[in-house]
Amino acid sequence: MTTTIVSADLPGQRVSELDNKHVFHSWSAQDLVDALPVSTASGASFTDYEGNTYLDFGSQLVNLNLGHQHPRLVQALQDQAGKLATIQPAFANDARSELARLITEAAPGSLNHVFFTNGGADANEHAVRMARLHTGRKKVMSQYRSYHGATATAISLTGDPRRWPNDPGDPSVVHFFGPYTYRSAFWAGDAEEECQRALQHLEEQIVFEGASTIAAIIIETVVGTNGILVPPEGYLPGVRALCDKYGILYIADEVMTGFGRTGTMFAVENFNVEPDLMTFAKGVNSGYVPLGGVVLSDAVRDTFATTAYPGGLTYSGHPLACAVGVETFAVFKDEHILERTRQLGDEVVAPFLAELVEKYECVGEVRGLGLFWAVELVRDRTTREPLVPFNPNAEENIPMLRIGAACKAAGLWPMIQQNRIHIAPPLIISEKDLRRGLAIIEEAINTAC
Amino acid sequence: MTTTIVSADLPGQRVSELDNKHVFHSWSAQDLVDALPVSTASGASFTDYEGNTYLDFGSQLVNLNLGHQHPRLVQALQDQAGKLATIQPAFANDARSELARLITEAAPGSLNHVFFTNGGADANEHAVRMARLHTGRKKVMSQYRSYHGATATAISLTGDPRRWPNDPGDPSVVHFFGPYTYRSAFWAGDAEEECQRALQHLEEQIVFEGASTIAAIIIETVVGTNGILVPPEGYLPGVRALCDKYGILYIADEVMTGFGRTGTMFAVENFNVEPDLMTFAKGVNSGYVPLGGVVLSDAVRDTFATTAYPGGLTYSGHPLACAVGVETFAVFKDEHILERTRQLGDEVVAPFLAELVEKYECVGEVRGLGLFWAVELVRDRTTREPLVPFNPNAEENIPMLRIGAACKAAGLWPMIQQNRIHIAPPLIISEKDLRRGLAIIEEAINTAC
Ligand SMILES: Cc1ncc(COP(=O)(O)O)c(C=O)c1O
Ligand SMILES: Cc1ncc(COP(=O)(O)O)c(C=O)c1O
Repeated sequence: MTTTIVSADLPGQRVSELDNKHVFHSWSAQDLVDALPVSTASGASFTDYEGNTYLDFGSQLVNLNLGHQHPRLVQALQDQAGKLATIQPAFANDARSELARLITEAAPGSLNHVFFTNGGADANEHAVRMARLHTGRKKVMSQYRSYHGATATAISLTGDPRRWPNDPGDPSVVHFFGPYTYRSAFWAGDAEEECQRALQHLEEQIVFEGASTIAAIIIETVVGTNGILVPPEGYLPGVRALCDKYGILYIADEVMTGFGRTGTMFAVENFNVEPDLMTFAKGVNSGYVPLGGVVLSDAVRDTFATTAYPGGLTYSGHPLACAVGVETFAVFKDEHILERTRQLGDEVVAPFLAELVEKYECVGEVRGLGLFWAVELVRDRTTREPLVPFNPNAEENIPMLRIGAACKAAGLWPMIQQNRIHIAPPLIISEKDLRRGLAIIEEAINTAC
Repeated sequence: MTTTIVSADLPGQRVSELDNKHVFHSWSAQDLVDALPVSTASGASFTDYEGNTYLDFGSQLVNLNLGHQHPRLVQALQDQAGKLATIQPAFANDARSELARLITEAAPGSLNHVFFTNGGADANEHAVRMARLHTGRKKVMSQYRSYHGATATAISLTGDPRRWPNDPGDPSVVHFFGPYTYRSAFWAGDAEEECQRALQHLEEQIVFEGASTIAAIIIETVVGTNGILVPPEGYLPGVRALCDKYGILYIADEVMTGFGRTGTMFAVENFNVEPDLMTFAKGVNSGYVPLGGVVLSDAVRDTFATTAYPGGLTYSGHPLACAVGVETFAVFKDEHILERTRQLGDEVVAPFLAELVEKYECVGEVRGLGLFWAVELVRDRTTREPLVPFNPNAEENIPMLRIGAACKAAGLWPMIQQNRIHIAPPLIISEKDLRRGLAIIEEAINTAC
């Protein structure tokens, strides 16, 4: 090697130049990528190389629950780095042991065992494998309007356009419609009817797929990128009952909803259900170090008591990642993160958004809980025609791009999905910043729709 | 939460207790796991809670190329943690940009673009997806005797018993036999004949699978866990030629071999071949932070110039992981890692192991390059019957377990695979420790076979 190595402190222009030349970007047409180089970040904001600061209303990819550069997480990371950066999964490690304890104590019921992975996709891959081997069945049912990751089985589980170019993938995945009262697939008039019909639809599909062929049903507890769809109260208990009736395992995907996003540690707590397997990632350590995992019930774990579990990965239970996870629990406690998330959701976001519906014709529905909300924009309130069509092309998407641009110009980095603005700031955001961000979003809606 | 949070400094007994209770282990029957709790580590050694220190002759899972707690890697990690621990893939980041530059400059030919992943499995998943979309073909060929990871497509690519409980997986994977002169699948008499016949076999299988249906061939440049199988000189260039002839992409899996393990930055350099896609992980930052990736040729990248690449992950291009990668390149340069790896391989390991073959009836073959070697143990030199059968059960495996126990008792943590002892210490190991470790292995062979 005769190459020169520059320390990672590059000027912004050089960061961009190298990014354009050498970094291949997720989900993108590479010639169209023009990635903003970010220089520093703190709390709920980040700053580019020209000194523009943005309120981060998507918590990066809804993973940054404790915000940028939380001093305690940074300290825990640096301490663990100085102590023992890595050790392979076959050994035991204090940070890993302690995080497993904390997660299982926070998880409902008999979810007492943690298999650590690197992220959300592989967590779902392993959960599905566990379910298949536990039941001896192959098929897995997942929802249209869902995202479960981008490895082969995870992308097959996904129920949105990101799956299409990857079809046919895992041949044993079947999709069904979940509840979505505002755009009911079941001609329901209200949430209660939506719930009852969604369960009836699911049971009919189970019967026709053959209950005895179905290993698991996987559901995002609150559907994330596909719309912040909060299920009606009885839906998840109804799914649990169907799973029990037919010997199917219930996998809760809590990759986006886990670790406080909805105001409870895991979103299943809002609905009083206990899954057989629960996957997590993102908020477990705010993404400071890649980490994900599966929480297994005693029963599923026992399937692999004397028979080897056929799966693994080099970085399972990475000490650095786990140490930041352990500190995350401590910060949640000391900073009353769950309480403040519920409070900010109930007392600031909910009333503010409720007013938007009153004020703007183009705001069709708002929904959410905790600090996890969607503002759904429509062309027409009566027909509920979305402001941009499903899976819009660049031209069709112009109205949403305009809203995005208006937010950015005013110092807020928005999370825009289809015809929706998602609101998912770091859970440590100050009330002042939260109100400021909401005002920016209102102004963008006001000018752009 | 009323749970108490203990800082991650636990006594060893507590680490074990929580590990047993709450940590689900890779590739294991959970009731049989009795994981050694590791307390500290430094350079080529690690220490348990009772103060026993072990020479790490497997570099953890052959990822710890620069050893435990390398002060410069730790510093780079801590600095980046203090600066910007994480930022999502859609932004540009200096550490990510710089590491992409360094990798592409080190990679052969037109491999000019890096898609970052969390580890080796997802790197292979994405490489296969890219090849499928680039060629418009679906089938992928991989070798028997291979490991490519544990997500759905990666485990299907795998050609060892770890795949079996996961079958049927990705239905478009086909396996073929690679060269292995010591146990030829082609009745070959020497390496040259093995090479020629392996290529003839591969071409015949391509023809009968239908060349026009095959997107890619994926090969570990030097087969790792399945035997440190160094291909005969002409084999990989022959594969490259077949790929060109039939319009198939050549994917090099350099997850284990990349970043100096064989004495060159990437192992393909030993064989003068340029793949279309190359995957990496492990050695890129010694596993201090989970990281993997795919290096793409210009041609493959251009397939996604104006059409979106349908894949991604939350932690793609993680700044913390990339910063340690950047520092890895600097350490390689300053500490002459490649030179010393070649030298230690050629001048210490090779002659030592050659003598073992002379001295011990049970040593059937030794092979390797750089600091990547296998000692293959046999019951019978003439028949080459392995010391333990393929995929041994616990009882059949007793001879290898005895060797492992002897090594551990003498202070060396060995890497044992089937009937082989693999030798893959950190590349920073001192010559003295290397010789000490080799002597321990000899003594274990001497007493146990
Ligand atoms: C609900 C859900 N599941 C799984 C994933 C995949 O996680 P990762 O990107 O870490 O693979 C995501 C990522 O956005 C997600 O939102
Ligand atoms: C050659 C090879 N490919 C892929 C992998 C999978 O990497 P990971 O464990 O990071 O998923 C490994 C891991 O040992 C490997 O040796």
